[in-house]
Amino acid sequence: MLVYDTAVERNPKVLKTCRQYLHWTQRSVFQGELSTAQYRALLHTLETVIDADYDSIVTYTARSPIMMETNTLGVALGGPGDIL
Amino acid sequence: MLVYDTAVERNPKVLKTCRQYLHWTQRSVFQGELSTAQYRALLHTLETVIDADYDSIVTYTARSPIMMETNTLGVALGGPGDIL
Repeated sequence: MLVYDTAVERNPKVLKTCRQYLHWTQRSVFQGELSTAQYRALLHTLETVIDADYDSIVTYTARSPIMMETNTLGVALGGPGDIL
Repeated sequence: MLVYDTAVERNPKVLKTCRQYLHWTQRSVFQGELSTAQYRALLHTLETVIDADYDSIVTYTARSPIMMETNTLGVALGGPGDIL
């Protein structure tokens, strides 16, 4: 689970990076299953893309998908095949 | 962890409901620790507030905070004391 809050001018790069590793869930939210190496690569790339004094990216990681329960109210938005 | 994507005109009610149970993390993201009863009450109230044909709310729940690892890149936004 990754949520971003970045300046509009940096959004395309953040989105492009996130889409390489995760699928889009909702507005500013991505999710997916990553290996430790993939997770590190994603964070490393994002660090080079964002302005750390202004932007914010928060990730939530569970060791196993079983440990994280997801619940949707209303419309289920992004799936793996959706385009942002 | 709760993320919402609701129509602008319903945002104030959604925010008010979420703030009664969780603290704001970032743009459209809230988080917090809830009992099962609190969690049910929150979802029940949100169901009465949103338009299920248009809005979307997704929650991510771990059985214990220990099972969920959080990582922040850049600015750490909302804390328990922040006002949205």
